[in-house]
Amino acid sequence: MSVKILTIKEDVLGANEEKAKTNRELMDKHNVLMVNIMSSPGAGKTSLILQTLNKFKGKTRIAVIEGDIASTIDADKVSKLAIPVVQINTAGACHLDANMIKGGLDNLALEQLDLVIVENVGNLVCPAEFATGAHKKVMLLSVPEGDDKPYKYPLMFTEADVVLINKIDVLPYFDFDVSAFSKAVSGLNPSARIFPISAKTGEGLEAWFSWLEDAIKQKTS
Amino acid sequence: MSVKILTIKEDVLGANEEKAKTNRELMDKHNVLMVNIMSSPGAGKTSLILQTLNKFKGKTRIAVIEGDIASTIDADKVSKLAIPVVQINTAGACHLDANMIKGGLDNLALEQLDLVIVENVGNLVCPAEFATGAHKKVMLLSVPEGDDKPYKYPLMFTEADVVLINKIDVLPYFDFDVSAFSKAVSGLNPSARIFPISAKTGEGLEAWFSWLEDAIKQKTS
Repeated sequence: MSVKILTIKEDVLGANEEKAKTNRELMDKHNVLMVNIMSSPGAGKTSLILQTLNKFKGKTRIAVIEGDIASTIDADKVSKLAIPVVQINTAGACHLDANMIKGGLDNLALEQLDLVIVENVGNLVCPAEFATGAHKKVMLLSVPEGDDKPYKYPLMFTEADVVLINKIDVLPYFDFDVSAFSKAVSGLNPSARIFPISAKTGEGLEAWFSWLEDAIKQKTS
Repeated sequence: MSVKILTIKEDVLGANEEKAKTNRELMDKHNVLMVNIMSSPGAGKTSLILQTLNKFKGKTRIAVIEGDIASTIDADKVSKLAIPVVQINTAGACHLDANMIKGGLDNLALEQLDLVIVENVGNLVCPAEFATGAHKKVMLLSVPEGDDKPYKYPLMFTEADVVLINKIDVLPYFDFDVSAFSKAVSGLNPSARIFPISAKTGEGLEAWFSWLEDAIKQKTS
């Protein structure tokens, strides 16, 4: 049976780009690196951030902006590490936009920071469409989500500077082809760095830490 | 350290409601049940639909509307079962709206159907906000996503008639408390039916099939 295809377009806001540019300039003025972390719900953004904070705490001055539709579950976890954190509740919106990030930055002492980590709303679609002003975009795709996601959600994979394949500790229990997935990502985005990790067990995280350390050095030096 | 909370509002379109009502009337006129299936990317919507088609094929006349940002991967799978399928590529939009569904319904012979299954775009946020005209809303939450999702994405859980806990075959490898999750869902939505299933192994699917069979009977009788 043949498959019918309907293509229906939607306009995406343009004014956001200008505000994102202003955020970027503000970060640059203070030599602060901003990293925007995106993924589906439950792919492991918060676990990655907690591992990263534990690694860099003490030597790098970090703050976190937490985006969620509702709740402060993630911000509370970050806050326990004595890291400055701003929770943005989007009240239904499916992504953080540049204006929300501006609200977050206004609540942080940028002159005392090297790195701002943004945890976006769990969503593989909208966050990729809205610039925040972040210097680097990092996305997580977790093994249980399946290796076909680059075909279904291409923009997120096209936009990412780093693609982390998370939850590799459960690879034996899922049909996930790391090699096929990596090829699909490289096809969409040849310059994307791909790191297989487990934010739970710590496996593979050194490559991510090393990438992040370099990015911070380039920004702050 | 204290957590700062910023709440930023976004308007949601209203005209969609009217179009959804028209879709519902069209289905009612033909005694067809429409079910809208929603979840995060990779939670198992397509696997559930394929299992459901295999169960109901022959005795129930079914068509599927597949929503995706890009690709026809899922529609191709459905099409192999000789089931009528319409693929809607949303060209970036993070959800199916009533107008897109109307486009799908216009391509189906409703007078020859009992059931239309809509597979929404993989997203735990926007699909809950946009009415399609479906009589029933079904959501999947897969075990690897974590049991805290009702707190972070409350609207989806509040809107659902049925919440399927999918991938229970991997429960031993994840920290997921089925009882705590079910209580959280019931707290938001006391009338939601909750069925733990594995669309992969088939475990628990009979309860879902039975619920769906009753819903179809009520509509077509």
